[in-house]
Amino acid sequence: MAKEIVNREENYSLWYNNLVTKADLAENSAVRGCMVIKPYGYAIWEKMQAQLDKMFKDTGHVNAYFPLFIPKSFLSKEAEHVEGFAKECAVVTHHRLMTNPDGPGVVVDPDAKLEEELIVRPTSETIIWNTYKNWIKSYRDLPILVNQWANVVRWEMRTRLFLRTAEFLWQEGHTAHATMEEAIEETEKMVNVYAKFAREFLAIPVVVGKKTESERFAGALDTLCIEAMMQDGKALQAGTSHFLGQNFAKAFDVQFANKEGKLDYVWATSWGVSTRLMGALIMAHSDNNGLVLPPKLAPIHVVMVPIYKTEQEQQSIIDRMDNIKKMLEARGLTVKIDDRDNVRSGFKFAEWELKGVPVRVAIGPRDLANNCVEIARRDTLSKESVSVDGVDAYIQSLLDDIQQNIYNKALEFRINNTHKVDSYDEFKEKIERGGFLLCHWDGSSETEQKIKEETKATIRCIPTDSDFEQEPGVCVYSGKPSKGRVIFARSY
Amino acid sequence: MAKEIVNREENYSLWYNNLVTKADLAENSAVRGCMVIKPYGYAIWEKMQAQLDKMFKDTGHVNAYFPLFIPKSFLSKEAEHVEGFAKECAVVTHHRLMTNPDGPGVVVDPDAKLEEELIVRPTSETIIWNTYKNWIKSYRDLPILVNQWANVVRWEMRTRLFLRTAEFLWQEGHTAHATMEEAIEETEKMVNVYAKFAREFLAIPVVVGKKTESERFAGALDTLCIEAMMQDGKALQAGTSHFLGQNFAKAFDVQFANKEGKLDYVWATSWGVSTRLMGALIMAHSDNNGLVLPPKLAPIHVVMVPIYKTEQEQQSIIDRMDNIKKMLEARGLTVKIDDRDNVRSGFKFAEWELKGVPVRVAIGPRDLANNCVEIARRDTLSKESVSVDGVDAYIQSLLDDIQQNIYNKALEFRINNTHKVDSYDEFKEKIERGGFLLCHWDGSSETEQKIKEETKATIRCIPTDSDFEQEPGVCVYSGKPSKGRVIFARSY
Repeated sequence: MAKEIVNREENYSLWYNNLVTKADLAENSAVRGCMVIKPYGYAIWEKMQAQLDKMFKDTGHVNAYFPLFIPKSFLSKEAEHVEGFAKECAVVTHHRLMTNPDGPGVVVDPDAKLEEELIVRPTSETIIWNTYKNWIKSYRDLPILVNQWANVVRWEMRTRLFLRTAEFLWQEGHTAHATMEEAIEETEKMVNVYAKFAREFLAIPVVVGKKTESERFAGALDTLCIEAMMQDGKALQAGTSHFLGQNFAKAFDVQFANKEGKLDYVWATSWGVSTRLMGALIMAHSDNNGLVLPPKLAPIHVVMVPIYKTEQEQQSIIDRMDNIKKMLEARGLTVKIDDRDNVRSGFKFAEWELKGVPVRVAIGPRDLANNCVEIARRDTLSKESVSVDGVDAYIQSLLDDIQQNIYNKALEFRINNTHKVDSYDEFKEKIERGGFLLCHWDGSSETEQKIKEETKATIRCIPTDSDFEQEPGVCVYSGKPSKGRVIFARSY
Repeated sequence: MAKEIVNREENYSLWYNNLVTKADLAENSAVRGCMVIKPYGYAIWEKMQAQLDKMFKDTGHVNAYFPLFIPKSFLSKEAEHVEGFAKECAVVTHHRLMTNPDGPGVVVDPDAKLEEELIVRPTSETIIWNTYKNWIKSYRDLPILVNQWANVVRWEMRTRLFLRTAEFLWQEGHTAHATMEEAIEETEKMVNVYAKFAREFLAIPVVVGKKTESERFAGALDTLCIEAMMQDGKALQAGTSHFLGQNFAKAFDVQFANKEGKLDYVWATSWGVSTRLMGALIMAHSDNNGLVLPPKLAPIHVVMVPIYKTEQEQQSIIDRMDNIKKMLEARGLTVKIDDRDNVRSGFKFAEWELKGVPVRVAIGPRDLANNCVEIARRDTLSKESVSVDGVDAYIQSLLDDIQQNIYNKALEFRINNTHKVDSYDEFKEKIERGGFLLCHWDGSSETEQKIKEETKATIRCIPTDSDFEQEPGVCVYSGKPSKGRVIFARSY
């Protein structure tokens, strides 16, 4: 085939890069660390956006838009936040170019230096809380339940398409509440929205949990997260929801008059998912033939490939396909008939497998005569002959089946690669083979740090999921008492 | 009322600013020239986006995403483009902050200077054509019909909410074609998409036309546009579609093998509309009571205000409203019941008028007894009593009527304020009262420039609309021959 990809067993990392570029999802740009999201990749992201946006609105949120730039001084207002975020970022220092007086092209106009440098937002808590200050006077102005779809920039040194890029697309929710309880409830509600989205749409059986203090968002009192397992056994943090307490309200002096008329600081949450989800989606399900897309996020549900020798055969087959296409479209499905005449059908099969289209329909002259079609499913690569009568209902139910099967397979993988480990020797041995290690931990940052240094594994979360019952024990590293098991893994 | 706005006859400019801020559409941010788009304003923008996105996809386009940053050297590759765009822009020079060694806060790390400065995109032709270079080898790779929804930054010295801001949101289409004819056809197709959107959704009777050479986009061979008339008689350019010829293909060396196997440069178009449309929408229809929103873009179609004295009355009225709400929602309408108990109904009436909700339904005890509701339409401010039976169908048809009426009113205004002018004295007198002046022009940039200097009026477009038949004549300024009338106006 034209666009070969390396086997994932051979080189997982290269397999991933091959997939992203050869399936036309994204590519590196001329700007270091910034990617171009190509139309096929963007179409998947749009489907994610549409679904998430609906879920946010169904839970009472509205969208707004805040500036791309943050005055430098804002970043240092919340002490922990600046430590975590203000370092590697894009700094705007000037606002004009001028014709180069000494040669061709343009140069920065030295007279156009900004009084205060502007930072391209790495996240928007500071500019948003500076704005909320003017929106909030009384408890009647609360809650504020705002989300923003935006681009952000973090000047990462080592970048990988979708997983870690200097610029990425995301949504960031920023809510303001009158009480601590309400803010905590919001934090939990949103991590559960993310978990539901990941499970039902991405078909990824994420684990919901809480970050340890050292893995928390800079400025948060608590960070909840969803953690996904990739096919190499590494963990990927797929979404976070932060309880920010009154930290940002205090940093930006946002007070409100409560029902009793007394002034109090506002309680905050923030939560986000990004184009990193694209990386998770790709690495969770794909195989050596290419992408495997869950039907609910596939830009094309069904591709049809005609197989013919004569022009007359071609016409009859295309007519048949047009009929089926209309029936499928009436069911809300997206269908493509690949009628290119400059490539062979084998090439087409490989290309649509590479692109992860869930269902392929092939029709040849014999199928036409038998009133049949050949249906191939991308997840299992199995094929069968199906009667044209009722084929639309058949395909729709097949798509549901594929969605469920992809999830089940990923869940089985996660279960098979999640191990209760009770000795540090076993820990060191098992971690080399990847997966989640469920271990007792004494709750100290020192132990966490030591294990990280010695094994490169971090605590992905303290699971709060009902899948993970908790019982007390002793720390796998220090032998000190532990309240329950946490998940250790190497991660992206 | 709580949020008074100045009369537009008194101070049009302040009236506009009052509307934008008091109707909660947008506000200035802490960053010079950058706005915050508030939830109510963003909801209107989202409706515009959804409709435009659908129209782009219906005409065969797909979305993608390109980097926020453009290497400085790219801007000077297309000679005219750099003159028009590279000057006032945000320049990123560094990629790291550090703790201030001499005091509190953070400072720019002098060691983290970029080798080449990055420009925050003012428009994306350069980075996109640099990317297309790798996408296009043969005529089979064409056309490329890509659109991008993004933020852009132009360091404007004088900014106004929505109309001219340093950062704004927009879409930019960038297409690549094998032939000149195809590219010209695309340029025309997209300006007509914009015109249709403006007329049918914004309810603005825009004029379609062509820019003169001096008003063209920097790097274009032809710029088509839609021009709208605001209520002060000034023109507002609401959308542009550019035929770029082979300029960018040549600047970035993008060649393709045509059907005959010969190399040729690719033909290009670009086209865009921005959050400026919000400004056009506000200024075209609103009045001294506030916004007037066309129903097709209103975030809330119907607001209901209960009028009661006793708790029992309140409950019966709210029950009735819930019933009507359900019926209206079943018709795809968005309905809000304003059941606040801390403000009077007069305050509510004024607030929803300010926010431009097309239809208001009020129910009091007597209405309840008579099986009636009071319906007020925002565009005419007229009220009538309507039976509850069939009120949902009544309101739906009323909304269509309002949409049409807003358009008709704006069209009538445009017609009444468009004048054929054949002497320069009349020109100078009429231009003071605003409106479009339809004049003969000799086609020279010199004449255009003189008239601009003397009257502040520019040629908004050479109309191509069927509303404007063309006949030859003599230039209003120079007396030289003219092929047809052009539109002069002062503009935003």
